[in-house]
Amino acid sequence: MYICSLERMKDKISTFSRFGDAGHGGITRYSLSKEAIEARNEFLKRMKAIGAEIEMDDLGDIYATLAGSDPDAKRIVMASHVDSVKNGGNYDGILGVMSAMEVLESVAEQNISHQHPLTAMIWTNEEGSLYPPAMMCSGIVCYDYLPEDIRSKFRYEDMMASRSIVDPSKTFGEALKISGFQGDKAYRLNPEKYLYMFETHIEQGPILEDDGKDIGIVDCVLGMFNYRVKFYGQTVHAGTFPMPKRRDAFYAAAQALCYLHDEIDRLDIPELVYTTGEVVCHPCVHTCVPDYFDFSIDARHENPKVLERVLNIILSCAEKSWSGCKCEVVKAWNRDTVYWNKKLVGYVKEAAEEAGISHETIHSGAGHDAQFASYLLPTTMIFVQSKDGLSHCEPEYSSPEHCTEGATIMLNAVLKADAQA
Amino acid sequence: MYICSLERMKDKISTFSRFGDAGHGGITRYSLSKEAIEARNEFLKRMKAIGAEIEMDDLGDIYATLAGSDPDAKRIVMASHVDSVKNGGNYDGILGVMSAMEVLESVAEQNISHQHPLTAMIWTNEEGSLYPPAMMCSGIVCYDYLPEDIRSKFRYEDMMASRSIVDPSKTFGEALKISGFQGDKAYRLNPEKYLYMFETHIEQGPILEDDGKDIGIVDCVLGMFNYRVKFYGQTVHAGTFPMPKRRDAFYAAAQALCYLHDEIDRLDIPELVYTTGEVVCHPCVHTCVPDYFDFSIDARHENPKVLERVLNIILSCAEKSWSGCKCEVVKAWNRDTVYWNKKLVGYVKEAAEEAGISHETIHSGAGHDAQFASYLLPTTMIFVQSKDGLSHCEPEYSSPEHCTEGATIMLNAVLKADAQA
Repeated sequence: MYICSLERMKDKISTFSRFGDAGHGGITRYSLSKEAIEARNEFLKRMKAIGAEIEMDDLGDIYATLAGSDPDAKRIVMASHVDSVKNGGNYDGILGVMSAMEVLESVAEQNISHQHPLTAMIWTNEEGSLYPPAMMCSGIVCYDYLPEDIRSKFRYEDMMASRSIVDPSKTFGEALKISGFQGDKAYRLNPEKYLYMFETHIEQGPILEDDGKDIGIVDCVLGMFNYRVKFYGQTVHAGTFPMPKRRDAFYAAAQALCYLHDEIDRLDIPELVYTTGEVVCHPCVHTCVPDYFDFSIDARHENPKVLERVLNIILSCAEKSWSGCKCEVVKAWNRDTVYWNKKLVGYVKEAAEEAGISHETIHSGAGHDAQFASYLLPTTMIFVQSKDGLSHCEPEYSSPEHCTEGATIMLNAVLKADAQA
Repeated sequence: MYICSLERMKDKISTFSRFGDAGHGGITRYSLSKEAIEARNEFLKRMKAIGAEIEMDDLGDIYATLAGSDPDAKRIVMASHVDSVKNGGNYDGILGVMSAMEVLESVAEQNISHQHPLTAMIWTNEEGSLYPPAMMCSGIVCYDYLPEDIRSKFRYEDMMASRSIVDPSKTFGEALKISGFQGDKAYRLNPEKYLYMFETHIEQGPILEDDGKDIGIVDCVLGMFNYRVKFYGQTVHAGTFPMPKRRDAFYAAAQALCYLHDEIDRLDIPELVYTTGEVVCHPCVHTCVPDYFDFSIDARHENPKVLERVLNIILSCAEKSWSGCKCEVVKAWNRDTVYWNKKLVGYVKEAAEEAGISHETIHSGAGHDAQFASYLLPTTMIFVQSKDGLSHCEPEYSSPEHCTEGATIMLNAVLKADAQA
């Protein structure tokens, strides 16, 4: 059993927190921005310092590899991302990169023998905060292996043409070209050269903390669906149109949302989550009754039968009239539950037990690059406890002790995989 | 009793409908746009043709005046606007200008004697669709006479600096300067030179049509208030945060909106209208629980005691917790009911009765330039039936017959005012 360095992890956390520091505890570090490039250069500096070989693919994904004792063995890769959402925290994504670095640094410092080359990897543009969509480059790299309906969202040409949400005159392809990080397509992650993938990530939820566990042994990424619930009314003037004749699309949506909560909550399914996070209101003027309103609904659960029951409730909205407004329910997309490789999950669990680190099995409710990678390679994830379950915001926090425990577990799980492959 | 010309009114309606024709039955004619200038030039051409004297004030407001028999008498003015909302209809505003023209054309053609000079007027930028706020130039012209809290929204310097919502690099002041319609401040509407104001307008509601009446004798503009109802929750990730711990600001707002409808509708006040037309959702991302949501609430009624009861219900929202979210109710503005001059209302009613045109007394739920002018001069309004109550949209329609009846009533009411002043 090997142990990672708390001091070195603390140093990485404080160093990387400066790249994009927004001045109030968190960071804004859009993919390929000056701040993200600072983080990439810090990664390169530290990886070169331990003698890692550096490769970059055509999407700016970086691979830093320590050779193993078997020159013909495939690589074991540990990957995550350095980009953040706007006013995000210091842990989402970057913790997985720091953990991969920490594993390689521990291997180099402690001179730990291993057969397979070990690679620490940075995925470009996981968040998609500046250039949508999220998980862009893992979507492109894993394209040929993805299910058809997911794949169709990640066509190379479309991705290169993705426009900056801040300055629509700029595209992702242009930003990539001028970043200096565009390498060769031949270096892309592929199953001929790579054997397994691991990703360490913060939980982004409160379950581990509530259960008093430091580390989550992730078994799957939850299946989910995303629909839009749309309401069609009539715009009339706020001052001149009597109430009984109105068809108010916002009021219709509010009634339907309350109905959905009543009906779905009645199912009483403990691990179900559903979210209505995005709304559109038209014309959205204080002197007009809205003639159109829609909201997104995202529901996640491991069991497809549960999701089906929830979907039936949502679909039933379209059969009712809401304050005289027509309702339509439109599918945006869905994905099945993705189970991690059972052997790799087992190595992670053994490593946690041997290290005496408190842990429990947990599902991932969020999407990660590892999820796309799992169509390419046997893959698994490790979660580190999040304070108050907060993420994608500046108070996001995981203690250096928990972060180091996560790296220690990944190190030992990788070594088990290395020994047994 | 004099009668206006149906043929001439039809010709004006079809001519003015071309200026800003959006190609599907309505118009977009922003204030001071090329289309609005075409409408202004048509007005000038027709008014010069009957020998009217033209004046323009420093805000681009145009005054076309037919002299009366008494050289010392004050003017009686009929005013409205030629600008529209985006994808608006062919009647809102422009009908009042066409009616004023029709009155002057009838007086000229039929050689009707009158003591007072009669003025047809165009207000600049009533809608405020390109350069907010609405009723901008009547707000500036009537500034010294307006109540303090209304006036504060119409400071001259702020209005000149109002930025185009389409191209924020352009201001109203610059558009005015290059329009060619900026005249002399001395020509502004003022109580030394003007005696009474009339405005004819479409009803913009369904009451006249439902009651089978052609014309509304408007007695007041309803008092109203505008508040924002705000909800503060917490943003968490859609996939990772258990339902019972969530504080969802959108769900909170939906529950509160249903509560407001239940409680306010229970008051059972027939003429009350209230509207929740504008919403803000943050961060408005489908994978995040909203941490903030607010909506506007606009309520209108003649009786301030009714508005107070409604306001108390709205304020009670802030005393409750909505799905764990804090609620705050913030006043935007309010205004008292503005009663039209009783003598002028009487002239309009007499004119309608003498002409045998079906009519009823009605309140105005919408704001109009006449409302600001009423702080300056005795003022009243005439409403013309709107088809289906629709306005601020392309299907907006009033029949040429009803439009001509409105002009006939204004003509005879103006002549009564002229004779009796």
